[in-house]
Amino acid sequence: MKKHNFYAGPSILPGEVYEKSSEAIRDFAGTGVSILSISHRSTEFGEVMERARSLVKELLSLDDDFEVLFLQGGASMQFLQVPYNLMHHKSAYLETGTWASRAINEARYFGETVVVASSKDKQFRYIPKDYTVPSDADYFHITTNNTIYGTQMHEIPETEVPLVADMSSDIFSRVLDFNRFGLIYAGAQKNMGPAGTVMVAVRKSLLGKTGRRIPTMLDYETHIKKASMYNTPPVFAVYASMLTLEWVKKQGGVEAMEKINKEKSDLLYAELDRNPLFEPFVAKEDRSMMNVTFDLKDERVKPLFDRLWNEAGIVGLKGHRSVGGYRASLYNALPLESVKVLVEVMQETERKA
Amino acid sequence: MKKHNFYAGPSILPGEVYEKSSEAIRDFAGTGVSILSISHRSTEFGEVMERARSLVKELLSLDDDFEVLFLQGGASMQFLQVPYNLMHHKSAYLETGTWASRAINEARYFGETVVVASSKDKQFRYIPKDYTVPSDADYFHITTNNTIYGTQMHEIPETEVPLVADMSSDIFSRVLDFNRFGLIYAGAQKNMGPAGTVMVAVRKSLLGKTGRRIPTMLDYETHIKKASMYNTPPVFAVYASMLTLEWVKKQGGVEAMEKINKEKSDLLYAELDRNPLFEPFVAKEDRSMMNVTFDLKDERVKPLFDRLWNEAGIVGLKGHRSVGGYRASLYNALPLESVKVLVEVMQETERKA
Repeated sequence: MKKHNFYAGPSILPGEVYEKSSEAIRDFAGTGVSILSISHRSTEFGEVMERARSLVKELLSLDDDFEVLFLQGGASMQFLQVPYNLMHHKSAYLETGTWASRAINEARYFGETVVVASSKDKQFRYIPKDYTVPSDADYFHITTNNTIYGTQMHEIPETEVPLVADMSSDIFSRVLDFNRFGLIYAGAQKNMGPAGTVMVAVRKSLLGKTGRRIPTMLDYETHIKKASMYNTPPVFAVYASMLTLEWVKKQGGVEAMEKINKEKSDLLYAELDRNPLFEPFVAKEDRSMMNVTFDLKDERVKPLFDRLWNEAGIVGLKGHRSVGGYRASLYNALPLESVKVLVEVMQETERKA
Repeated sequence: MKKHNFYAGPSILPGEVYEKSSEAIRDFAGTGVSILSISHRSTEFGEVMERARSLVKELLSLDDDFEVLFLQGGASMQFLQVPYNLMHHKSAYLETGTWASRAINEARYFGETVVVASSKDKQFRYIPKDYTVPSDADYFHITTNNTIYGTQMHEIPETEVPLVADMSSDIFSRVLDFNRFGLIYAGAQKNMGPAGTVMVAVRKSLLGKTGRRIPTMLDYETHIKKASMYNTPPVFAVYASMLTLEWVKKQGGVEAMEKINKEKSDLLYAELDRNPLFEPFVAKEDRSMMNVTFDLKDERVKPLFDRLWNEAGIVGLKGHRSVGGYRASLYNALPLESVKVLVEVMQETERKA
């Protein structure tokens, strides 16, 4: 690619994912048929789905109680599907951003929903830390990384109740004990693949307990029984996700990703802390390794900075419309080189301002 | 492509869709960024979504009461979403195959669901024709083409109540008065594009009448208000669908598609009726132009026939696992040439058997 791609999602993928998926549109796995035009019941695609599911288990070191699904509808559909499948009487949520708020709204359709803490009072610039999770909640839902604000949970809370996490924007980017979770979901379009599929890793032992009749397509058990092939899956999105997961594995897995992601984000935050023109958006202890949000202290420097990063071939640096300012997303596939280019542009802005 | 692709779905797409989408993975619309890695909020993708939506309206000549959406979850999610949004007290369904049966099952979650007629008694080999639709039903649901069995509705029933149609396997393949419908949905992966998106064309005037609280992601009005961009859409699937719709338009629209589809299916049915080795599966008056199902009269000929069509570079001819035999899907993008090759193979089988 010719650009330094800092988009927050859909976002940059490894070069070999572009190459292989582009080629598979012309001829998939030597079948003489396009990946867009092969039956999802073909042996060749069946292998892709199984490989994608097992790579998730392997990369996250998930125990055998977990089933991995590739569904549709994005994380937004999971806001609904999680309470449909897991909530009997009561759920608990940590409100750390817009996506958490949306998840809370959907949970309220199903019963009592306790917001244990919220950082809404300060534009979600921090992660709340002192709260109590009701011990009779069916689950506790967190958002491990908040794409819009650039906050990230560096401590995963200890809870008595099953922990459910929206990891859309930091899955596969750092080491956690993923077996501490009851359910993990992630829209593919950041660290896992292109838009169009959402990964769900769910403990089988948590299912079937609500007494609720669940519509077929929203029931995790429907998809578990059919190995994520109950109906036609989003074939291309699953294929490109599998390629991305293979790339993560070849790089050395999640541990290697964390190392390079730390290096990238340390470099950028150091510059933001040093350069007098810029101001980071988020409380220091809650800064995200994935999404770095900041603004210029003086709006008059904006035309210069914007011109310079555009000239440097950078795209996707605009902050989310609800926050403004800038956001540099440093997902797994973004090379260190791109961060260096951004830091140079910041320094050049300082010299010329 | 090197193969004659008769897959029932995901299925063959026009050559230029492979070329352009393969290229867009390397560089989309001159942005220097892959279609897999560009923000769905970018101007360039915004134009793709709008173009796809307006092409559907144009190709189907839909009036202004219709809104067109590109959602996720396939037709299977629509089995649920249709009654969620449209059913107040009672719905009516015509049962013409497995997909219709699944739609009926989901409707039953929401209230009284009347099956006005079913062809289940004869393995769905025909379309029931004598039935009465209750005048107090909130809608009447039909499946215009039954992919598995190879039946197609050649007469669209006149009803007092709004007509809802699953057109997954014959949309854009023939001329109908689409304005007679209240809601049309179609999984993309036959005539519209790759797997991963479902098109919904719905009359705004039918919505908001159930008194039911609808979860955000399942509410058509959520997506209408945000022009099908409430959450991250399946970017690549929408892009490839737009390319396919542009191709349909360039060929002369749905009218031109019908002409060539008729030619292709006439050729194949004529051979099936003539060739003493073969037996069509479906009642003559209900034969589908899209999916031609048949079997060999004598199982002993199977090894010969299978060898010959494999040698001719044909793929995807196996019948659905619930029916057996053979199925040749003749979607828009399948060239007449491929049908000629299949007919030649049938004749060669006759000579050599």
